[in-house]
Amino acid sequence: MLGDAIARVQGEVDSLFDALLPVPEDTSARLIEAMRYAAIGGGKRVRPLLVVSTASLFGVAREPALRAGAAIEAIHVYSLIHDDLPCMDDDDLRHGKPTLHKAYDEATAVLAGDALHALAFEVLADPETSADPFSRVELISTLGTASGMSGMAGGQMMDMVADEEGVTYDLPAITRLQQLKTGALLAAAVEMGAILGKVPPQGRAPLRAYARDIGLAFQIADDLLDVEGDVEKAGKALRKDNEQGKQTFVTLMGIDKAREQARALVDQAVGHLAAYGPEADILRALARYIVERDR
Amino acid sequence: MLGDAIARVQGEVDSLFDALLPVPEDTSARLIEAMRYAAIGGGKRVRPLLVVSTASLFGVAREPALRAGAAIEAIHVYSLIHDDLPCMDDDDLRHGKPTLHKAYDEATAVLAGDALHALAFEVLADPETSADPFSRVELISTLGTASGMSGMAGGQMMDMVADEEGVTYDLPAITRLQQLKTGALLAAAVEMGAILGKVPPQGRAPLRAYARDIGLAFQIADDLLDVEGDVEKAGKALRKDNEQGKQTFVTLMGIDKAREQARALVDQAVGHLAAYGPEADILRALARYIVERDR
Repeated sequence: MLGDAIARVQGEVDSLFDALLPVPEDTSARLIEAMRYAAIGGGKRVRPLLVVSTASLFGVAREPALRAGAAIEAIHVYSLIHDDLPCMDDDDLRHGKPTLHKAYDEATAVLAGDALHALAFEVLADPETSADPFSRVELISTLGTASGMSGMAGGQMMDMVADEEGVTYDLPAITRLQQLKTGALLAAAVEMGAILGKVPPQGRAPLRAYARDIGLAFQIADDLLDVEGDVEKAGKALRKDNEQGKQTFVTLMGIDKAREQARALVDQAVGHLAAYGPEADILRALARYIVERDR
Repeated sequence: MLGDAIARVQGEVDSLFDALLPVPEDTSARLIEAMRYAAIGGGKRVRPLLVVSTASLFGVAREPALRAGAAIEAIHVYSLIHDDLPCMDDDDLRHGKPTLHKAYDEATAVLAGDALHALAFEVLADPETSADPFSRVELISTLGTASGMSGMAGGQMMDMVADEEGVTYDLPAITRLQQLKTGALLAAAVEMGAILGKVPPQGRAPLRAYARDIGLAFQIADDLLDVEGDVEKAGKALRKDNEQGKQTFVTLMGIDKAREQARALVDQAVGHLAAYGPEADILRALARYIVERDR
């Protein structure tokens, strides 16, 4: 069931990016081609699936939810492009193909990331995403905060400081780092589904608790994958944390304890959905998938 | 008079960035310090002055107009940070001090640019910028389109293709390139002032014509500055176009013709403001300043 839901969203997000990124006739074509290379045909699309599945709890139509999902995915993709750059993680492989700066060049990768970043807000500001301007502005505010200095970018800097200045973090600090770096955007995906569903902020508490738990579980699973995963299936470089002597949930807790913790978080996440019926089954299955995935 | 207006906006934009960028206690502090280094205390602040001066025609309060101005300036600053990177223009000097990747490092520069990019939309989505969500969403849509693939980023790619693939442009192509690369953001500044002033789109025609003309004049003046300017006053590297054998308005038209064209565009821009009285004097003076500036 979850496999079908993932495959469906993957196809829909690809189609939407295809429509949002028509290649122009002039020499800026190279920019749009590079954006398409990075945005179409790769990725698990966990964030769009979270938006769509949360929105569906409240009867939101599929099309606007997918648009919000594509916006958050555009942010995710731009962050991967920039993180893969030689001056950052210097990765050659992403979703099983050469990273954007390898397939094109660094300047194109910087610029394509920037243009995908802008695209996210262009999509959310469009009335097709929601007829209600207040909802659109709330979507934008949520995504801006989750991706900027108080969210993803802030977490990425904490991570870089650890790598470059040899700062070592304890478990509470790693937890905060990951809540910013990975958790903020996953939480934004659930929040954006609730915004489209016109759920008032005070009614979002269980969904926010669910999102916080799966965000942390997601990162622990990523750390486990880095240690135990299969490079071919993952489609990206692994064993990097250990090579770099980096503190992760796995180095701080050990493999067994980390796996136990990830599973406990998933149980807790599912518990937060108790008020919902079978309509939340995808969100439940997605929580389990997050710790069991092999890529 | 214009000098006072520029100095006032410079001080106000610096204060606003200071307030928007408090340095946190954790290790993400380095990110916010880098954003402050690039955003505070440099730049002519032409774009914020355009927003504020246009908004004042319609009685908009100063604070919201400055917030919209700071948002567009955040986009401008992020684009300079990324353009200065070694993989792009590889510049060492900006506003008379080391570029961000020289003062910090490349990874920090990429990330600080990204976080300023997100900050622009965070600021615009905030009710303090406008109580009306429809105006906020219109500001965001305008800025997103002007800065993304159909605006600034698209123009930057056209410029890169010329540099790297040896494509040479004729005058209409250079005009289009510059309208995207520089003109789109200047036009967005005027448009955002009109949005805050609740001017309906059909009432914005003269302001849009003004913005289009000064945008082109601005770029011609920049090309002239590259040939004739004083490096010390400009606070950045000059003579780069010629070294790189690049097509510019000056190489295509010659110095005299280019200067004549810039002045004619300014006269035409001022002509579009005929319906406004002395309240538009700053916009008129700003148009003249754009072609007479030495930095």
